[in-house]
Amino acid sequence: MNDQMTIACLDLEGVLIPEIWINLAEKTGIDDLRLTTRDIADYDELMTKRLEILDANGLTLKDFQEVVATMDPLDGAKEFLDWLQPQAEVIILSDTFREFAMPLIAKLGHPTMFCHSLSVDYETYRIKDYVLRQADQKRKAVIALKSLNFRVISMGDSYNDLSMLEEAHSGIFFKPTKKITEEYPDYPVMEDYESLQRHLCEAHGFRP
Amino acid sequence: MNDQMTIACLDLEGVLIPEIWINLAEKTGIDDLRLTTRDIADYDELMTKRLEILDANGLTLKDFQEVVATMDPLDGAKEFLDWLQPQAEVIILSDTFREFAMPLIAKLGHPTMFCHSLSVDYETYRIKDYVLRQADQKRKAVIALKSLNFRVISMGDSYNDLSMLEEAHSGIFFKPTKKITEEYPDYPVMEDYESLQRHLCEAHGFRP
Repeated sequence: MNDQMTIACLDLEGVLIPEIWINLAEKTGIDDLRLTTRDIADYDELMTKRLEILDANGLTLKDFQEVVATMDPLDGAKEFLDWLQPQAEVIILSDTFREFAMPLIAKLGHPTMFCHSLSVDYETYRIKDYVLRQADQKRKAVIALKSLNFRVISMGDSYNDLSMLEEAHSGIFFKPTKKITEEYPDYPVMEDYESLQRHLCEAHGFRP
Repeated sequence: MNDQMTIACLDLEGVLIPEIWINLAEKTGIDDLRLTTRDIADYDELMTKRLEILDANGLTLKDFQEVVATMDPLDGAKEFLDWLQPQAEVIILSDTFREFAMPLIAKLGHPTMFCHSLSVDYETYRIKDYVLRQADQKRKAVIALKSLNFRVISMGDSYNDLSMLEEAHSGIFFKPTKKITEEYPDYPVMEDYESLQRHLCEAHGFRP
């Protein structure tokens, strides 16, 4: 490892924890919650629809968090973080909403996360609205961290990670779809934590 | 709490853990390690001197970390972080060196830390040099976090914290000297974690 301090920027869903909305759909039996940006391309429209569905079913943030609390991080995710954190600073860069992810973030030992947030009425726990912290936040976070003289290594699985992979000194695909790796063949592809650790050792000087 | 996401920037030594160099001096019996910027005003000169003392006494990073491993966070520090992290993102902003602080950072549950680092020969664990990540790093970190649209609350105890207290949306003194509070009377002064938590609830909308 060179002498520049390293920050590892990790995507959350698909990299450290399962997809939250899909799990919520499964556990509540509300199929409409399976809708993704593949069904409704406009993210604002999709989120508005999702919050309408929660409201129509009387689901508050408390119910949501109770479901998320039954979920677990991906197998090996906590162990991977335990290995990574003594060697590099870690920041989760996720397009999730902080209040949704909190029970799982707690199970990961509360790594610092830059994401979005919800406007919640804490009397009733009704979700009033969602608040995107800023547009193109993953790219902007990496730019900011580079301005603080960190070496940045980004790891993600999906299209919304491309900006942070591109902006980082090194970008790595973790468990991506075949499609995205064919479209963006320049990033190394790791399919499990073991090979990711090996890659970080061999290519970036981490200690096994 | 308003809807803007909050980052709490915390100083490390004196706020969450004891002063490392003073403890090292006590545990090794090497009095010269007590030298601070009060004795040698130039930080570069002070650190060069400290590393010379370590070398002259045959102390490597391993010895240093073994001493630090016997230290504990300040009473209540971990509980304070456990209370804070579900409500705000936390970043430690410290002028310490990562490799020195790691055993204590581990005891705090590995919060993300922006600090400086050491150049180490990992064959012998000899400390070759220290690497300041950047000048005025605490101020620059707060500026960067504000550019990511976070509300920033900084908490520190000493002169090297003034820039991050000043640059943040809110700055708070935690267990400072009387002298600094007289020189900078505009910041609220908290003497223990209980009053700090109460202040964060009353002035910043945190939940007890």
